[in-house]
Amino acid sequence: MFEELLTDLDETSKVVNAFIERVIAEQTDPRELHLASGHLLRAGGKRLRPFLLTTCCKLLGGTLEKALPSAASVELLHNFTLIHDDIMDQDNTRRGVPTVHTLYDIPMAITSGDLLFAKVYDTVIKYSDRRAIGEENILRILQTLTEGTIAICVGQALDVLFEKRDDVSEEDYIHMIGGKTAALFRSSAEAGAIIAGGKLEDTSRLCSYAYKSGLAFQIVDDILGLMGNEKTLGKPVGSDVREGKRTLIVIQSLRKCSHDERRRILSVLGNRNATAGEVTEVIQVMRSLDSIEYAKRRAEAFVNEAIEHLEPFPENDPKKKLLDLARFFVARES
Amino acid sequence: MFEELLTDLDETSKVVNAFIERVIAEQTDPRELHLASGHLLRAGGKRLRPFLLTTCCKLLGGTLEKALPSAASVELLHNFTLIHDDIMDQDNTRRGVPTVHTLYDIPMAITSGDLLFAKVYDTVIKYSDRRAIGEENILRILQTLTEGTIAICVGQALDVLFEKRDDVSEEDYIHMIGGKTAALFRSSAEAGAIIAGGKLEDTSRLCSYAYKSGLAFQIVDDILGLMGNEKTLGKPVGSDVREGKRTLIVIQSLRKCSHDERRRILSVLGNRNATAGEVTEVIQVMRSLDSIEYAKRRAEAFVNEAIEHLEPFPENDPKKKLLDLARFFVARES
Repeated sequence: MFEELLTDLDETSKVVNAFIERVIAEQTDPRELHLASGHLLRAGGKRLRPFLLTTCCKLLGGTLEKALPSAASVELLHNFTLIHDDIMDQDNTRRGVPTVHTLYDIPMAITSGDLLFAKVYDTVIKYSDRRAIGEENILRILQTLTEGTIAICVGQALDVLFEKRDDVSEEDYIHMIGGKTAALFRSSAEAGAIIAGGKLEDTSRLCSYAYKSGLAFQIVDDILGLMGNEKTLGKPVGSDVREGKRTLIVIQSLRKCSHDERRRILSVLGNRNATAGEVTEVIQVMRSLDSIEYAKRRAEAFVNEAIEHLEPFPENDPKKKLLDLARFFVARES
Repeated sequence: MFEELLTDLDETSKVVNAFIERVIAEQTDPRELHLASGHLLRAGGKRLRPFLLTTCCKLLGGTLEKALPSAASVELLHNFTLIHDDIMDQDNTRRGVPTVHTLYDIPMAITSGDLLFAKVYDTVIKYSDRRAIGEENILRILQTLTEGTIAICVGQALDVLFEKRDDVSEEDYIHMIGGKTAALFRSSAEAGAIIAGGKLEDTSRLCSYAYKSGLAFQIVDDILGLMGNEKTLGKPVGSDVREGKRTLIVIQSLRKCSHDERRRILSVLGNRNATAGEVTEVIQVMRSLDSIEYAKRRAEAFVNEAIEHLEPFPENDPKKKLLDLARFFVARES
């Protein structure tokens, strides 16, 4: 169903990856830092944010070429947050390979993330076509990337703080994933729109589309983290349960469960020593409470809202891609 | 001797601190993140980098007011690196208070550092006077801050990697502290010069002055880490020895020592369980090899080189301050 989209994603990836390679090749001393900071970038990833950025740019009349430095930049930003998140969550595997702090150590992983973050700005400032985009607009791109990062920090802090709380509401969760995930989707769309020289109204529509899509994306990510296939997922299933993540599925389960089920869920949630059997049992309980289905319905609702924001745009190829992309976010299996 | 300079530093601090307070007050949710990211900033610090920036700006005809957002920004940048460095070095005390990861935890400390880093850009972009400074120059300020940060990451990675090596040369060390410390001094001077609308030649002179001063500053920092007074220093004396830091004092000692002394030094260097007595003994050995005096002479030589770069500037108050500042870097006791 998404064959065309996947081909498009793949094509954009190739161009973006070539640019990213060029950017990370600038910093080769010390070699460990070079390898550590490029490790996750080279391990794969779908390059959804660069695709979102370049497609929004095209929708408003811009070109891939003009958007390329910023497209690479949002992927650098995303990877910087992944490296730091993996340390915080003590995750050992991502994209089917060891995480950076597992392969190197925590100091090298922290510094690698910091380096990629600096490269976000370096890439946009050094490689953007100043004459075509204009200095004022380059500052606007940097501003939206910065606001996206501040939102990510807030979301990430909330995500970690929520692990210790049993009273996290659905609203709290949406606010948290809005920062952790949806904000960078929004920044990507906004950067693309700015590069194209889009009108404020169109830019704002694309931001809303991207933010809502990002919420759906994260809800589905949380579902896949429980129900997905470890191999296609590239990370262990159920680690969210052991880490005590307050996902929508957990929140809905705690809302609907019996006293006895609550006790069973909370005894395993956040217990890093829980056995595979205990984790599977808790996932089974949450599934029996229809929490997975509930989360899926919420994700679908956000995608529908996202799609509504695209309505005013004329039917053309970039719009079709954005529609497919949002639908793909809920339909995907990895 | 430095009374006038210390008064000037204090006056600039007050203005910069007020601005920093305003910037960190914008982000109060979640409260833990707000407190953690402001913790070290509120614990003191001499605000040397903002002072350097504003004084370079004044030397080239600019004002404190025009430079204030960037001055706050370099302090945010410095504090972001301190928070992350303290995690990497497992340091528990700084500026006389517990470090951020000690008071909160490692995830909150990583995120706090990331937040401050994002605020570096947020502050310059949002608060700089665009009409007075110009968008092109604001991009130049962001670029020098970014280059400074990339250099810090390289220096920090080298600093950690050197801990495992016994063959670190004086040249390696200078290269490492050039990144870890001197680069941000240079970026501060450059930003100040850009804000003032300085000519490239003058900007470049101030960069060289700041970079050389920064090298001297770090060498003296390493001396104080061994010989200083714990109370005025705000952190434990000798922690560099336990962490195995390859300071100039260590490098010079390993170059001059006997076979037996080498064995004694290396048995304590990098040994986190070394007793206070063992650390004191090793410091005594290094002192007896005249390594402290050697490092001090190198620092003085760098200050003299720094001062030479100021020669072409007319004698005025900002120049006097920059001369005093460089001399203070080697004379200070904390």
